[in-house]
Formats: sequence, C-alpha cells, structure tokens
Amino acid sequence: MSETLRETALRLDSEDPLAKRRELFALDAAVYLDGNSLGALPAHVPARMADVITREWGALRIRSWDESGWWTAPERTGDRIAPLVGAAPGQIVVGDSTSVNVFKAVVAAARLAGEERDEILVDATTFPTDGYIAESAARMTGRRIVPVAPAEVAGAVGPRTAAALVNHVDFRTGRLHDLPGITAAVRAAGALAVWDLCHSAGALPVGLDTHGVDLAVGCTYKYLNGGPGSPAYLYVAERHQGVFDSPLPGWNSHADPFGMTPGYAAADGAARGRVGTPDILSMLALESALDVWDGVAIEDVRAKSLALTDFFLECVRGYVPDGVVESLTPAAHAERGSQVALRCDAAPAVMAELIARGVVGDLRRPDVLRFGFTPLYVGFADAERAARVLAEVVTDLGVAA
Amino acid sequence: MSETLRETALRLDSEDPLAKRRELFALDAAVYLDGNSLGALPAHVPARMADVITREWGALRIRSWDESGWWTAPERTGDRIAPLVGAAPGQIVVGDSTSVNVFKAVVAAARLAGEERDEILVDATTFPTDGYIAESAARMTGRRIVPVAPAEVAGAVGPRTAAALVNHVDFRTGRLHDLPGITAAVRAAGALAVWDLCHSAGALPVGLDTHGVDLAVGCTYKYLNGGPGSPAYLYVAERHQGVFDSPLPGWNSHADPFGMTPGYAAADGAARGRVGTPDILSMLALESALDVWDGVAIEDVRAKSLALTDFFLECVRGYVPDGVVESLTPAAHAERGSQVALRCDAAPAVMAELIARGVVGDLRRPDVLRFGFTPLYVGFADAERAARVLAEVVTDLGVAA
Repeated sequence: MSETLRETALRLDSEDPLAKRRELFALDAAVYLDGNSLGALPAHVPARMADVITREWGALRIRSWDESGWWTAPERTGDRIAPLVGAAPGQIVVGDSTSVNVFKAVVAAARLAGEERDEILVDATTFPTDGYIAESAARMTGRRIVPVAPAEVAGAVGPRTAAALVNHVDFRTGRLHDLPGITAAVRAAGALAVWDLCHSAGALPVGLDTHGVDLAVGCTYKYLNGGPGSPAYLYVAERHQGVFDSPLPGWNSHADPFGMTPGYAAADGAARGRVGTPDILSMLALESALDVWDGVAIEDVRAKSLALTDFFLECVRGYVPDGVVESLTPAAHAERGSQVALRCDAAPAVMAELIARGVVGDLRRPDVLRFGFTPLYVGFADAERAARVLAEVVTDLGVAA
Repeated sequence: MSETLRETALRLDSEDPLAKRRELFALDAAVYLDGNSLGALPAHVPARMADVITREWGALRIRSWDESGWWTAPERTGDRIAPLVGAAPGQIVVGDSTSVNVFKAVVAAARLAGEERDEILVDATTFPTDGYIAESAARMTGRRIVPVAPAEVAGAVGPRTAAALVNHVDFRTGRLHDLPGITAAVRAAGALAVWDLCHSAGALPVGLDTHGVDLAVGCTYKYLNGGPGSPAYLYVAERHQGVFDSPLPGWNSHADPFGMTPGYAAADGAARGRVGTPDILSMLALESALDVWDGVAIEDVRAKSLALTDFFLECVRGYVPDGVVESLTPAAHAERGSQVALRCDAAPAVMAELIARGVVGDLRRPDVLRFGFTPLYVGFADAERAARVLAEVVTDLGVAA
C-alpha cells in the first residue's frame, strides 16, 4: 500500500532538520501560512520587550541611548540581517519603512548614474508602493519611469538607463526573478541595480555581495518576524557608500550628529542611510526576533521552502478537484519564491472560510489565494492540512472547475 | 521669618492641580529634567504593550490589522494629539520620523506655493535636521534656502517666498517664537507657514487651527511621552488636504491601498500623509501613552510650566554664585518654552556630575546645560532640588564666575 499524503507529511516532518525551530515561536492550532505578510511572534520577544520598556525606557530613560545601545541599533541590527542576504557587515542599516528606503535608494541610484541617464526601469509587476515611490523619485530627479517586466529588464537596459528597480520575488505570484542575471545586465549597461527583497530575505539565499547588487531594500516583518510594521532596511554596497547622496539627509546620518551644526556633512558607511531618530521599540523587537536565525544556514531554509511548496502543490493536486484552482506560482524551482498563489473563483469567500477553519493564508484581490511557507515554523503536516481543508472548503462552497 | 525656597517648593506642590498626574508615571528618586529629550514612561504602558505583543501580534497575528485596529492607528493616534496642538480632528497623521515629515511638509508646501515662488525661508537657529532636510527639499523642488532668524521672518517674506519653516521653540535656548504673528505674516505674503512643534507640543498651547498654520510636524517622544523614537506626526490643514502632493506617495496613502493597482491615486484626508506600513509597536505605545492627557487642559500645563521655570530660575539665582551660570532662556513668558538653558563653563563636567547626583538634564555642546520641565510629572520640589544640587556641583568642581 503506497504512503498517503498524510503519512508522507509526517515522515517529512520527522526528517526535517529545521523542525525544532518551530518551538521558538508562539503558535497555536491554526496553520499559519501568512508569514509572508506578518511573521509569527518569536516566543522570547515579549520578555525582551518588557525589559526594554520597563528598564531601558522606564528606569534608564535617556541614558539608554548610550548605555542600552539604542543609538547604534540601526547598524547593529543591519549587521544581523546581513548574513541572511549575503552581505558583508557595514552595508545594511535598519530604519524607516520600505517605501521610504525605496525613495532613498532610487534617488541615490539616479544621482550615482549621472544626469545623462534619464530613465529608471521599474518592475512592471512590482508591489505598488515601489512603483509609486519610484515615480516620485523620477519626478524629483528629472528622470522618467519605464515599466518593464522583470524578464525583459536585461534587454531593455541601455545608455539612458540610470537604474532598474526590481522585486526579487513577485508579491502576488511568488515568482522568483533572476537577481544574478538581471544585476549583471544592468551593471553591464552602466546602470545601477536596485532590488526589493521584501519577499525573499529570510526565505532564500540572496547573495547581494556575490552578485554585485548596487542597492537593496527590504522589510523585516515577513520572513524575518520582526513584528507588525517593524523597520525596513537599506543596503548600499560598500563601493557606493562614499558617494551615496541621500534625499533624506536627517541628523542621524550626519558625521557628527551631536555637534548639531547647521552644515550637513554625511557620515561614512551604512549610517549615511539613516534619517531621523529611529523607532526604538520596533527596532529592538526586530533585533530580538532575529535570534531565531542563530545557527541557521539560509541554504537549509531554501531547501525546506522548496520541499514545502512542492509538497503543498502535490497535496493540492491530490485533494482538490481538477480545475478548481490554478497555480500562478512557477513550477520550476529556479523561478519560485516561498509562497504558492492559487487562482480560484470565489477566492474571497474561500479564503474567509479557510481562515474560519484554521488555515490562515491571505487574499490578493480579486481572485488569488496566497499561502506563504515560512520554513522556520511551518511543517509538512501543515501543508497537507492546508490543502485538505482547501479541498473541503471548495467542495462545501460548491466552487466549480 | 520669610519662607525658604524649599518651603516655597513644598507649598507650590501642595497647591498644584496637576500634582497627582505624577503618579501616572514610572519615576524614581532622580529629578528627571530631560523629558524634553525623552519623556518618562507612563506606568500603564508596559501592560498594554505586553498585550499588544503577546495577544495582538502573537495570537491574532495578521487579523490584528483589522481586528485590533492597527491599520487605522496613524489617523486615530493623530486625532488623540490634535486637541493638544489645537487642531480639529482629521488633520494629523502619525508615522515616520520628524525628519521624514519635514521633507513631506516642505516639499508639499513648495508645490502648493507654485513654481514662481523659489525661496524657502528656514529658521536659522533650527534644530539641524530641519535645515538639512529643507535643503534637500529645496534642491529637489528647484528652490533655494534662505536662512532667517525667526524674529526676522515676518520682514523677510515676500513674493518669492514659497514657505517658511520655523521651530516653535528653540531646542537650545528654549525661546518660544511668535507662531501667530509669524504665521500671519507668512500667509499675508502668499506663502505657507510650516511649523516644527517638537519642543512645544504637550508643553504649551499651539493653536494650529486658530492661527491658520498651513503645515506642521512634531515628534512624540518628548512632552508626549511616546517612548524612544516613537513616530512623529504631520499636520496638513484641511484646506490644503485635497491638493497636498506628497513626495513620498507610499501605498498607505493610496485611496484604495488593498486594490494594489499600478496607478497612484491619493487618499482623501490626513491619510494622504501616510507612506509605508506603520511601525505598530511604537505607534501603539504612543497611543497608550497619550492616556495620561485625558482630562488635562493644555492651558493648565502651560501655567504650571511657566511657574516651574520661573521658580527654577529663582532658585538658581538664590543658590548659585552670581555669574557662574547665565540663562539663555528668555525671561518674558511670551518668549519662553518649557525648558531652561544655562550657559556654564565646564558644562560637560557639570552635567555629568549633576546626573551622578540624581539631577538629569542634558548637555548641548559646547557649554549649555539644558533642563526640561514636563509639567505632568515634574514638581516644584524637583526644581528646587535641581538648583540646589547645581549650586553644590559648581562649588565642588570649582567653576568660577
């Protein structure tokens, strides 16, 4: 008798070298497949934050800027993220939202490229904020936006290209774009490659330094589990730091911030990407949350992620009547991030019912069911259960093929 | 026998209608006169944040964006700040740092003023970040910066003025600038008045609506006690909201943010000032912290603030040998914020020793001792003790007149 999908799930969980990491998170009976929207709470974070709030803020108060290391948290936390995205220390600074960092990165890239380069290529399938912000950056630096599908960026770059802003993984379909190849093509044309890592950092190897990425941004509340709206980060490759020209030169990016001089002089290094006073509570929650990565190799995360999404798709094929859902996520591993997007009629009703039955994914209007697989705390039994409940829901709701 | 300063302090404390508010804060034996840098912890905030982290993030996870009201927190919290600065609801949104909000406000003001107005007046004594960011805003909108002392703004505005950016209270000296008069003069010249309220909000009445201010920004971690690096806010007067043109049009400011459409369409109202995903932990700590203002009239805060700074200056005159310190803070009430700045030789050593002896102010290099008086939790006995310990310290350190 061949192994059932349920038996396979249990076997895969028992063989999973990352399975024990799940114990580091506060989870419940639900299958949480929305960690690509908001990562689960690492179980140790509440105690750390109680100490931050009660002792560092409440008792030490202003002294904590030095004594509790608040002032240096943006660079220190950046250096904790760095190995997860393949960056040597000193190139990532944490702070502000992803949108604000996109603005810094695109404006700085345009300035670095020089005035004769008047086009900024933007991933036409981008998460909307990147497009809106890039448009503003173009308007304010005298450039124009050229929307291009990621696969066509390499063919579209030329002597007028200042920069290309591309998402590493498409937020809707989960498609993984070719960061090494696109970066190489953009750089070969003399332009700068700016990557948005929101849906890849913490899910798969990025290799920023290895592949010669110029600038990158990302959020920290998805696969990095930093908490709701935790601050984003900016990567500026070391070779650009000395000429990085920020459109938001706040006092935190000054070479001598406490000199409080009227003239601006940019700090060296990653600190040049800072702006104003950092959001310390959110920043320190993120820093603490990053402890769950200690001793984890991102390659192992990637292997499990692919195994999870493969297995989930296998379970969907096994359980859900043919034609009721259609995967928008590429089958090829080289083109897949860490989520599965299923097109489905009546997707809003289906997702609502899935959530009511303890399988939490999310909806991307109008008709996409999105399931994120966060390898540190999602297992194969979760994947099997999600597909099984999905099959029950589409049957119960009478969703036809 | 006349009353001693110590006796006066105790009497003033016993007569103080705000004295009981002190019990709402986590305080210790120190005299904390640095609330104009980082406000003290409201005692109820740790329990609220434990609930936010453990239940809202940890248990409800993604559902909290709706069910716990995370999504609407920026406007809701703005409406909590509004009465403290004299704004009707719907004009203040919380998020990002002060620096980022200065950028939004100055760029938007320049755009509102029209292209023929090519000068931006900036408070020459400004907190540095405002000047740095205004310079960037000018560079990116084709304007030039004209530094002007606040008292000279009214005489300097003209047909080329797009906007004037002024601090309500000088961070170094504690001088209160004439918001009604300057605003009227700027508006009479057809320009926009942009105010930085970092050192006035929560310390004195601002009257944004009454005085016709166009745009304003402020931080929330000083007199508003929001916690380290808690998010700042942006005020856009209702009459400008429909044409407010943000340089940071992130997806949170979209009319239909979850439509996730490639084209940008700005939201109505205060939400147009939002950018990316808000820092929820910091935001909700601030929202909770604002509870200490329930039932407080800002006029009573102002009355106590002036009484405190008057009394502190009286104690300094009474205790500290003549000529050892010199007040940089105006004697006239109409020109004084809620801090006292004392110029003193050897200020760094004096402040270090004051802190060691339990009187916490701060230093503004090279020679300014800064003492902030936060009327919700600082009392007259604190003021007397601070002056007394200051006298002891300058004597012990041998600081000569």
